Amino acid sequence: MKLATLKDGSRDGQLLVVSRDLKTACIADGMAPTLQRALDDWNFMAPQLDELYARLNGGRAANSFDFDASKCMAPLPRAFQWADGSSYVNHVELVRKARSADMPDSFWHDPLMYQGGSDDFIGPQDDIVMASEEWGIDFESEIAVITGDVPMGVKVQNAAEHIRLLMLVNDVSLRNLIPAELAKGFGFFQSKPASSFSPVAVTPDELGDAWKEGKVHLPLRSSLNNMLVGQPNAGVDMVFSFPQLITHLCKTRNARAGTIVGSGTVSNKDAAKGYSCIAEKRALEMIAVGEPVTPYMKFGDSIKIEMLDKNGKSIFGAIEQSVVEQHG
Amino acid sequence: MKLATLKDGSRDGQLLVVSRDLKTACIADGMAPTLQRALDDWNFMAPQLDELYARLNGGRAANSFDFDASKCMAPLPRAFQWADGSSYVNHVELVRKARSADMPDSFWHDPLMYQGGSDDFIGPQDDIVMASEEWGIDFESEIAVITGDVPMGVKVQNAAEHIRLLMLVNDVSLRNLIPAELAKGFGFFQSKPASSFSPVAVTPDELGDAWKEGKVHLPLRSSLNNMLVGQPNAGVDMVFSFPQLITHLCKTRNARAGTIVGSGTVSNKDAAKGYSCIAEKRALEMIAVGEPVTPYMKFGDSIKIEMLDKNGKSIFGAIEQSVVEQHG
Repeated sequence: MKLATLKDGSRDGQLLVVSRDLKTACIADGMAPTLQRALDDWNFMAPQLDELYARLNGGRAANSFDFDASKCMAPLPRAFQWADGSSYVNHVELVRKARSADMPDSFWHDPLMYQGGSDDFIGPQDDIVMASEEWGIDFESEIAVITGDVPMGVKVQNAAEHIRLLMLVNDVSLRNLIPAELAKGFGFFQSKPASSFSPVAVTPDELGDAWKEGKVHLPLRSSLNNMLVGQPNAGVDMVFSFPQLITHLCKTRNARAGTIVGSGTVSNKDAAKGYSCIAEKRALEMIAVGEPVTPYMKFGDSIKIEMLDKNGKSIFGAIEQSVVEQHG
Repeated sequence: MKLATLKDGSRDGQLLVVSRDLKTACIADGMAPTLQRALDDWNFMAPQLDELYARLNGGRAANSFDFDASKCMAPLPRAFQWADGSSYVNHVELVRKARSADMPDSFWHDPLMYQGGSDDFIGPQDDIVMASEEWGIDFESEIAVITGDVPMGVKVQNAAEHIRLLMLVNDVSLRNLIPAELAKGFGFFQSKPASSFSPVAVTPDELGDAWKEGKVHLPLRSSLNNMLVGQPNAGVDMVFSFPQLITHLCKTRNARAGTIVGSGTVSNKDAAKGYSCIAEKRALEMIAVGEPVTPYMKFGDSIKIEMLDKNGKSIFGAIEQSVVEQHG
């Protein structure tokens, strides 16, 4: 099934069930008011929501209306956890190569993961508001899963069963703040402002056979200023599957329902597939011609992130955002 | 006023108003069911809760009962943000000196802060459950504030007004996992398991004149296995005040209601004040005798963290935890 969150002026919005073709929606009235509440009691809620989803797809749901992604918040407008991996190690290797830094061999078998801020996500079509272009504003196109409760020490073979939903992410990054911040040794902080998510979160079964081995085997499309710049296949070159990332996350602690785990910037070794963040394009330029050419995002620039199924239909709806200057 | 969260089997528990002397409590019935809900609508809720607090202190509250910290969850059992600073730069300098690493001068004017996991906090008297002693289990005694909504780019002089509540924290750390994790460059992750918090969160006015310039001017007492090992004054050698930490947090993003901001391990330059984490004690031993002597915590060890007012009364109640081996 497909779920979304309607802007209603409240902090957590209103849970919507959305039709498979993303054309209609209805409020999950009398079931769960918010997505977090549904996740908190998933085994009880999911069958009811799924039944409503079937009625909606069959044109038999009461009080359905046209689905409008611009009226959506992030599926989880605020979450209790956002942990972002870096599974496409090719991307990490490229970025490091561009600055002549070797990559430790351990990066191929021990996942990189950072804890992100999760209190204030932005909606799929909300502006990316920033005070300064000098910060090096970049997008990062990723896939994320939302989990149920996962116990500390979970084994890889048991981790997949805790995956409830999948989404797309724009993990906005401030490239020019990263070097100084990482040099301090405590990881990303100011360099990772609020992330945005696709209008719709979907259960794994919606992906059909594109969901296997804990990976999504479809191209992730990124368009910068309306030009397609990347379409790497998210199932290719993903060194750590989502179950592996969840296992990494839970080595020393539980993860509770509503935890979001990101894949990291999707990247294929085949450079013809383009890029899912400007930093990677700049790394390739650095390696090829000795200096980066493509600028980071400026005020007014736009980014669209989307994933289509085998029939060309959008699965999650599109993230479509503009970068806007903060005033006041 | 003083607020706590009662274990009731639910994920967020039941909001309690607790008397100033920590002897009685009552359920904030008909007001806010949970602390997060109170924080979400603080201007509306706080006066009502404060009125109940006055009645409770005067022995005039209906349905009050004996307050029992062992039945408490963390005041926010799960939070949308936990951002921990490192304001006692003395502590950072000592730990680095012990491993013969210079500290960049920037650490004195640019706060260190990391994003912590916030989805699964442990209660003030809950066990610290860990799979292995080999991870180097340590406590870290800290102070934290809970904020309301804070806008991106907030100025230091405006940050204090967003502080709603204060708590004590045990920021449990796994010392032997830290070096390899920090070497990866993405900051703490597995080395920072679930944190625990004091039974009670208090509004700043409860601290009287001990709350000034965005710092708490009282000793923070840590007892390891029932022996007092530290009582540094949290108002001394705190290089970055809470308003400064909040400003750092909000440089590139908003912080939303219920954000928890930590002070970092409390530490005084005066070594006679003892220590608020074993790592600091070991650093002092390393500097003095060339090797660390004090071991990290073993299964069965206990830690108590408390702050007393000028009259010797506990302000927040005590964090009192034992380290326990995970089974299964």
